[in-house]
Amino acid sequence: MKAVFIGSGNVATHLAKALQEKGVIISQVYSRTSNNAEILAKKLNTSYTIDVFEIDRTADIYFYALTDRSFQSFIRSFDAPNALHVHTAGSISLREFDGFANKYGVFYPLQTFSKDRPVDFSQIPICIEACNMHVQDELLDLANMISTKTFIINSDQRKKLHLAAVFACNFTNYMYDVASMILEDSGISFEIIKPLILETAEKTRTLIPYDAQTGPAVRYDEKTINKHLYMLTKNYRFRRIYRLLSKSIHKRHKLK
Amino acid sequence: MKAVFIGSGNVATHLAKALQEKGVIISQVYSRTSNNAEILAKKLNTSYTIDVFEIDRTADIYFYALTDRSFQSFIRSFDAPNALHVHTAGSISLREFDGFANKYGVFYPLQTFSKDRPVDFSQIPICIEACNMHVQDELLDLANMISTKTFIINSDQRKKLHLAAVFACNFTNYMYDVASMILEDSGISFEIIKPLILETAEKTRTLIPYDAQTGPAVRYDEKTINKHLYMLTKNYRFRRIYRLLSKSIHKRHKLK
Repeated sequence: MKAVFIGSGNVATHLAKALQEKGVIISQVYSRTSNNAEILAKKLNTSYTIDVFEIDRTADIYFYALTDRSFQSFIRSFDAPNALHVHTAGSISLREFDGFANKYGVFYPLQTFSKDRPVDFSQIPICIEACNMHVQDELLDLANMISTKTFIINSDQRKKLHLAAVFACNFTNYMYDVASMILEDSGISFEIIKPLILETAEKTRTLIPYDAQTGPAVRYDEKTINKHLYMLTKNYRFRRIYRLLSKSIHKRHKLK
Repeated sequence: MKAVFIGSGNVATHLAKALQEKGVIISQVYSRTSNNAEILAKKLNTSYTIDVFEIDRTADIYFYALTDRSFQSFIRSFDAPNALHVHTAGSISLREFDGFANKYGVFYPLQTFSKDRPVDFSQIPICIEACNMHVQDELLDLANMISTKTFIINSDQRKKLHLAAVFACNFTNYMYDVASMILEDSGISFEIIKPLILETAEKTRTLIPYDAQTGPAVRYDEKTINKHLYMLTKNYRFRRIYRLLSKSIHKRHKLK
């Protein structure tokens, strides 16, 4: 099987590597930014192009790892009628391929990728959706090659899954980032808080988040909350976040 | 060494157990709620009381694992002049002992505890503060018995550390909780998102949170952000959180 990668970001990098390790030939990388395309092509020991007209048209499958906006404009400018076209995004509907491809699907790995951090693809859930059962089987076979966790997820569910992932990953990481700024400001090493971060995540293995909730907001310990708000006087943004999340936690635990 | 625990919540439960395993005699548990006191006393195979006047006055050390408010009223009603008095809270200053004890300190384990989840105390950072060097050495010896990570942290730093912990743990867990509600609403199992939660935390081992940030907000992918806000139309609270955090992330990454 011969594949071309459209896009050269974190998802493209990790997915292309994982597929290549299982024998898929990555014949080319396309990206608008030549620097990124070159870096990924080097990692895969393959060629790259920044010109849509020079994209290899003989591939069996095209993987699109692009932002929403780039994806929509790209599929309008590219055509390979006999190939399978697959995007890797949580937020893009399958229907967006309508009229632009004959065989298409979604191959969404639900994970956070950073360029220089290796991942174990076998543990990454891969969400599949396809234009028909035949393509679905093809994509499932491909997903099962690299992961032990494959799911059939339709576009509506995937949209919700992607939204949930923004909370569980992107916003969570920002909470770590805020913590790191508060510590840095006081000359305390971020190291000291790492065991807490890891245990908070580990808890999800055995407890539902509702039951795992701890801290001043859940018991509405106003004295502590007010001390914290006072400490954040100079940082209006952190103060707003603190207040909004504490109120939300309190409301959630009062309601049940 | 003979210790009495004042309080019977999650911190008391895990800390008392860890100390007992290393040979400290827990002679009694005090709590205002007899049910909690009884449960912890049973776990420790010791006695309990709900009457301040019946607290064992012969202990060497009293551990206070109470909320801010309860702590302040309790130390005004209890006296054991020759013993060492230690609280376990991130948010309470050492100075609050002034005038109420002769020998006192802080023994703050920086971790999130849930009653039925075992923890490995050896990996939990313990933050020590004391009224004098002699007490500090005593508390360090005690901390080193149960943990490999002990730190001298003053009250100002500890306050900041506790505030940072609210972001890194309590608010983070609430992000998981919001994700679980969004998934539940769409009939998707929370299981599918667990690898993402774990990897997001694991990333802190090798990347600073600023560098680990991914998602639509960091690249300000307005199309995806607007789709997400639209999906949250019916949930005003989640929508506010989404908007505030996305703006904050964007601002943070635009600034640097």
